[in-house]
Amino acid sequence: MHVLVIGAGGMLGQKLVKTFALTGKLRGQRISRITRHDAVLAPPPPVSAFDIQTQIGDISHSEVATKLIAERPDVIFHLAAIVSGEAEDNFEKGYNVNLYGTRHVLEAIRLIGGSYCPRFLFTSSIAVFGAPFPESIEDTYFTTPLTSYGTQKAICELLISDYARRGFIQGLSLRMPTVCVRPGKPNKAASGFFSNIIREPLVGHEAILPVSDQVRHWHASPRAAVAMLIHGAEIDLTQVGPRRALNMPGVSCTVAQQIAALGRIAGDKAVRLIKSVPDEAISRIVAGWPSRFDAKRALALGFKADEDFDAIIRAHVEDELQGKL
Amino acid sequence: MHVLVIGAGGMLGQKLVKTFALTGKLRGQRISRITRHDAVLAPPPPVSAFDIQTQIGDISHSEVATKLIAERPDVIFHLAAIVSGEAEDNFEKGYNVNLYGTRHVLEAIRLIGGSYCPRFLFTSSIAVFGAPFPESIEDTYFTTPLTSYGTQKAICELLISDYARRGFIQGLSLRMPTVCVRPGKPNKAASGFFSNIIREPLVGHEAILPVSDQVRHWHASPRAAVAMLIHGAEIDLTQVGPRRALNMPGVSCTVAQQIAALGRIAGDKAVRLIKSVPDEAISRIVAGWPSRFDAKRALALGFKADEDFDAIIRAHVEDELQGKL
Repeated sequence: MHVLVIGAGGMLGQKLVKTFALTGKLRGQRISRITRHDAVLAPPPPVSAFDIQTQIGDISHSEVATKLIAERPDVIFHLAAIVSGEAEDNFEKGYNVNLYGTRHVLEAIRLIGGSYCPRFLFTSSIAVFGAPFPESIEDTYFTTPLTSYGTQKAICELLISDYARRGFIQGLSLRMPTVCVRPGKPNKAASGFFSNIIREPLVGHEAILPVSDQVRHWHASPRAAVAMLIHGAEIDLTQVGPRRALNMPGVSCTVAQQIAALGRIAGDKAVRLIKSVPDEAISRIVAGWPSRFDAKRALALGFKADEDFDAIIRAHVEDELQGKL
Repeated sequence: MHVLVIGAGGMLGQKLVKTFALTGKLRGQRISRITRHDAVLAPPPPVSAFDIQTQIGDISHSEVATKLIAERPDVIFHLAAIVSGEAEDNFEKGYNVNLYGTRHVLEAIRLIGGSYCPRFLFTSSIAVFGAPFPESIEDTYFTTPLTSYGTQKAICELLISDYARRGFIQGLSLRMPTVCVRPGKPNKAASGFFSNIIREPLVGHEAILPVSDQVRHWHASPRAAVAMLIHGAEIDLTQVGPRRALNMPGVSCTVAQQIAALGRIAGDKAVRLIKSVPDEAISRIVAGWPSRFDAKRALALGFKADEDFDAIIRAHVEDELQGKL
């Protein structure tokens, strides 16, 4: 079993490879090899019983995609993307990587031909949806993105369903919730505060809350997100049928509910480290995001959300803080 | 006012140009020039008070798109497509023309830059939807095409909404009903019988009905379809907002209702020319098509369907048979 992870240097990519290094298995088979790919050098690979190779390159060049696929990986996780803000600022770069990069990989697979038909997991995003929304978004709700990033993700979903229908890939697109608690340093992404207000107080640092505590959002822990990717690589796709883009389950909660969970786990001292500093611009952006899904199909297919926001915080404490508060 | 019609050699393209030759106007302005573009030579242009030029070329080559757009047309009707069956048989040709051709035109517009922002009308299709369907498809229903053609149309809709949102085009995608009664000879398209069973008996010829007369479908006359394109070029897009793909209104009726309308207009003699010859393959294809829409948004924006199927037949008699039965 040869696994290719495109975008292996990102947070989910690193955690996915680390999980495989620990388990050594996928789809009931022993992993013999992982190829990590990213545009820039990823941190060193984890210790593993199998070979982990690293390739650096830009998939918006078709020859890079061709070279990656020439090794005929059995399972491909395509996590690479120019993120939302950058794809909006740099129209060409966003389309080149997020749309053409994906298409180059799909074409490289198709052009191998014969019986080659790898499992292909794509991380899509709730950014495929655009406001205004119903209170809860059903599986059949239409994709009307309001960013170029969301447009590129929605287009890739369509390509993946068509390439799957034609028998070129065993494709599946997972619309991931916002990953929270994101480890690492606070960042300036508009969604960053959802993680900052938990991660920073847990280690005794202040965090800024730029929006009302009544803002509701859709969350998955990094641990749940990695489990969704692996589950997506393992399920029987005949159960899924031709509609290959799935809203992933998540935890819908308000910022106030996030903070209450923090209080239950780390006490009032942690809660007091959250400073409310309203930011009009961030509030406006966040108001355009979906906040709740009815992920019936994914749940029926065995995808699992975290139990609640307390569980999301506990996963962070276990995975990032060695279980210590 | 310079109008570019891409795909001008097709049935709708020819009728659109003929309409402009008669009215000489669009968006309240005098038309000074029309450029007709197609992959193959179109029939001679109609007599007109303004210049009609014809260009032949394949828009899947970016330089062809660049040359067309260099003339800075004010309004662009993009009707060109590899049709459903051919896009399914020839995967590369379908993507090259239907997806990359459209993208080349959009990119040529964007790269002109400055204040250039033409009105851009795209004919999309109900093929963006894939079975199973609800009884009536709402404006918010998701696009899960089951053909490469439908995939390419759905992707172009997303591109057009994004290019419009970014201010590169005044873009709008119209999901056209099946055009009926299609003039010309009977063809072997799976949908051909919807027109054949009306057009042929009206001139005393037999026609084959390959499906049950309980099959329901969504129709617009060529006249109504041309009026939708012109209306789309004229409406105020601020009313439309960022969701730029619209289900067009149509007439939903069963084959039995089509035949009853034929009887009312041309008598039993015409009806008796329809021979039922069930075809399993065609019945199966047609069962995968949507049959009814709730086109609320388009109706509110002033798009108009034919009044009923009788009106569709009368339009055919007037426009194609000089009003004579």
